[in-house]
Amino acid sequence: MAMRTRVAIVGAGPAGLLLSHLLEAEGVESVVLETRTQEYVEARIRAGILEQSTVDLLVQNGLGDRLLAEGDPHRGIHLQWPQERHHLDFVDLIGRTVTVYGQTEVQKDLGQAREAAGQPILYGIGDTGVHDVESDHPYVTFTDADGKRRRLDADVVVGCDGSFGPSRGAVPPAARQTWERTYPYAWLGVLAAVAPSTDELIYARHPDGFALHSMRSADVSRFYLQVPAGTDIAAWPDDRIWEALSTRLNLDGWELATGAITEKSVLPMRSFVQQPMRHGRLFLAGDAAHIVPPTGAKGLNLAVADVALLAPALAGLLVRGDHRAADAYSDTALRRVWRCTHFSWWMTTMLHTGDDPFDAQLQLSQLRWVAGSEAAARGLAENYAGMPIGL
Amino acid sequence: MAMRTRVAIVGAGPAGLLLSHLLEAEGVESVVLETRTQEYVEARIRAGILEQSTVDLLVQNGLGDRLLAEGDPHRGIHLQWPQERHHLDFVDLIGRTVTVYGQTEVQKDLGQAREAAGQPILYGIGDTGVHDVESDHPYVTFTDADGKRRRLDADVVVGCDGSFGPSRGAVPPAARQTWERTYPYAWLGVLAAVAPSTDELIYARHPDGFALHSMRSADVSRFYLQVPAGTDIAAWPDDRIWEALSTRLNLDGWELATGAITEKSVLPMRSFVQQPMRHGRLFLAGDAAHIVPPTGAKGLNLAVADVALLAPALAGLLVRGDHRAADAYSDTALRRVWRCTHFSWWMTTMLHTGDDPFDAQLQLSQLRWVAGSEAAARGLAENYAGMPIGL
Repeated sequence: MAMRTRVAIVGAGPAGLLLSHLLEAEGVESVVLETRTQEYVEARIRAGILEQSTVDLLVQNGLGDRLLAEGDPHRGIHLQWPQERHHLDFVDLIGRTVTVYGQTEVQKDLGQAREAAGQPILYGIGDTGVHDVESDHPYVTFTDADGKRRRLDADVVVGCDGSFGPSRGAVPPAARQTWERTYPYAWLGVLAAVAPSTDELIYARHPDGFALHSMRSADVSRFYLQVPAGTDIAAWPDDRIWEALSTRLNLDGWELATGAITEKSVLPMRSFVQQPMRHGRLFLAGDAAHIVPPTGAKGLNLAVADVALLAPALAGLLVRGDHRAADAYSDTALRRVWRCTHFSWWMTTMLHTGDDPFDAQLQLSQLRWVAGSEAAARGLAENYAGMPIGL
Repeated sequence: MAMRTRVAIVGAGPAGLLLSHLLEAEGVESVVLETRTQEYVEARIRAGILEQSTVDLLVQNGLGDRLLAEGDPHRGIHLQWPQERHHLDFVDLIGRTVTVYGQTEVQKDLGQAREAAGQPILYGIGDTGVHDVESDHPYVTFTDADGKRRRLDADVVVGCDGSFGPSRGAVPPAARQTWERTYPYAWLGVLAAVAPSTDELIYARHPDGFALHSMRSADVSRFYLQVPAGTDIAAWPDDRIWEALSTRLNLDGWELATGAITEKSVLPMRSFVQQPMRHGRLFLAGDAAHIVPPTGAKGLNLAVADVALLAPALAGLLVRGDHRAADAYSDTALRRVWRCTHFSWWMTTMLHTGDDPFDAQLQLSQLRWVAGSEAAARGLAENYAGMPIGL
């Protein structure tokens, strides 16, 4: 059973759904394929920090109603090490900032908008294969949710299917380069039914390891603890988690409120980039092309920046016969990817503790520099709040 | 044969001589001891970049006549990677800058000033021992240039005797902490009788390795090449040096002038900090307490900053009975030491190539960021031109 569309989008995460939304506004029809169920995709817990450019893009494209009502614009972050907590005010430093709004909420907003628009999204598919991307007639094969083998023909295929999807591997090995860095630690992520004990995020370097106090709403806090890579979640009963958070986030005159832990999981950390982000009629966007460790909250924002470039580039290619932006897509996107890859690596290696005592002193001297130098603080701020898309 | 002074200074490099100069201005008598001959000390090739604060301090203390006449104030540096050379203008960025003036020249100026002042300097001593620094009556024992055993009693001893002198080790192991980082590369340093091919220093990252084009005068250029640690200078005949420099510094439309190589040597690179910088009546300054790799030119400037703090602190202690600045010396000096240790490590690891392809991409993304972001450029500039002393 064959179908045909202009753009076959593999993956219905934020990158895939936003791309289909932006393509529709450009008059380009698309079909989205997703291995998971809609419920799974909308429930999975991910990032929660939106760059200024991400917010602007969502608002400009009619996706901002709930975001503007419920999102929590922050002026900056707190940076902490023992006995010191410094606020970096991004608005004062660079006139740009971030908004706290969970990826789950972005996903729901996108899902509703796409549903309202009658976007064809096929959830629960399997055995996905991406074919003939070097020709002008690429296609995707898959088994649908009813177990039928199907084929989707398209003018281009876009891989928005993350690290584990088939798109990345559809670029022949000889045509791709990859870079990878693994880290010896992971994040233990926790959702707790308790009001945040802080107005803005606290990034804390402590001799026991990194801790992050984030939040999802007025009643829900989000915490992360540095743990060794490969940590078994069973080793972290709730009381151990609260004890570690209290120790690592401790500051005289400040208290951490505790509550019921409603979700906890261990998140691996790595950096990965595959280049180029286009091969023939296949384009990669988001985690399909690059993974960043979560420190600095770049993953979702980078995916948004990719598709913000890609939608007009594909419209140029498919509607106006202008291939320039499509040809430039990979190089343009990769400039931001490497900037964010460096920033995420830097935030990660500045805040996570290891075995080397010299590294520990380098970390502290950098934290003191960022807290004490306007230039250094602006450097962090412009990366965290994010550069305008396309730069 | 015993002598007595207020401050026994071990080491007649720039730190020791400048300290004796500054102490005299504070009315504090000192004696300087040095294992090398005066000729050796004045001839050894070292750094050549003076921070703004170093220049200001030398000028304010009557040591600026030749420096102001012959020193070459630079507005900034060039930062290069293949096909790109960017000028960072420190004056525009932060209103501070650096002056090119060889350490050999600073040493000569200091030597002449101390000689004019009748400063007792004992060159060519040996078997130096630093004693009883935990008492109020520390002393130094040594064999003088005539082979006689001697003893110098003092109120305080200051170790300005570098990495290999005895002062560092006179702090008992239980009272000291050290941090060290070695690097897998070294610098092949070259002096050449040729006019510089550039107005300001070029720091170049090239796949073959780092290269630096510096200068000493209108007729003398100074070059450095990254080579593996432990490189035998015999492996680098002059033509190989020129070829490597031409390759690594290559830029379309620019040419490297070559000339006679008059000096070449391999310089090891490491980072080292010993803490605290005071133990009882013993104070450490300069390389005796800390070593930085040469990238970023911090070594001499850090030594100057140390003694600029130490001279008034010792005057307080010995003349006015006010021990507060002396008690604060180690912590105050170490803030700058760690800032410069981080900066030197950062410049080193951003510009020197290694085996890891992910690191190579991080380096390039940082170089592009520094060249493209005013905040990042200001961050480099404020470190390179140097913070005001005492901050």
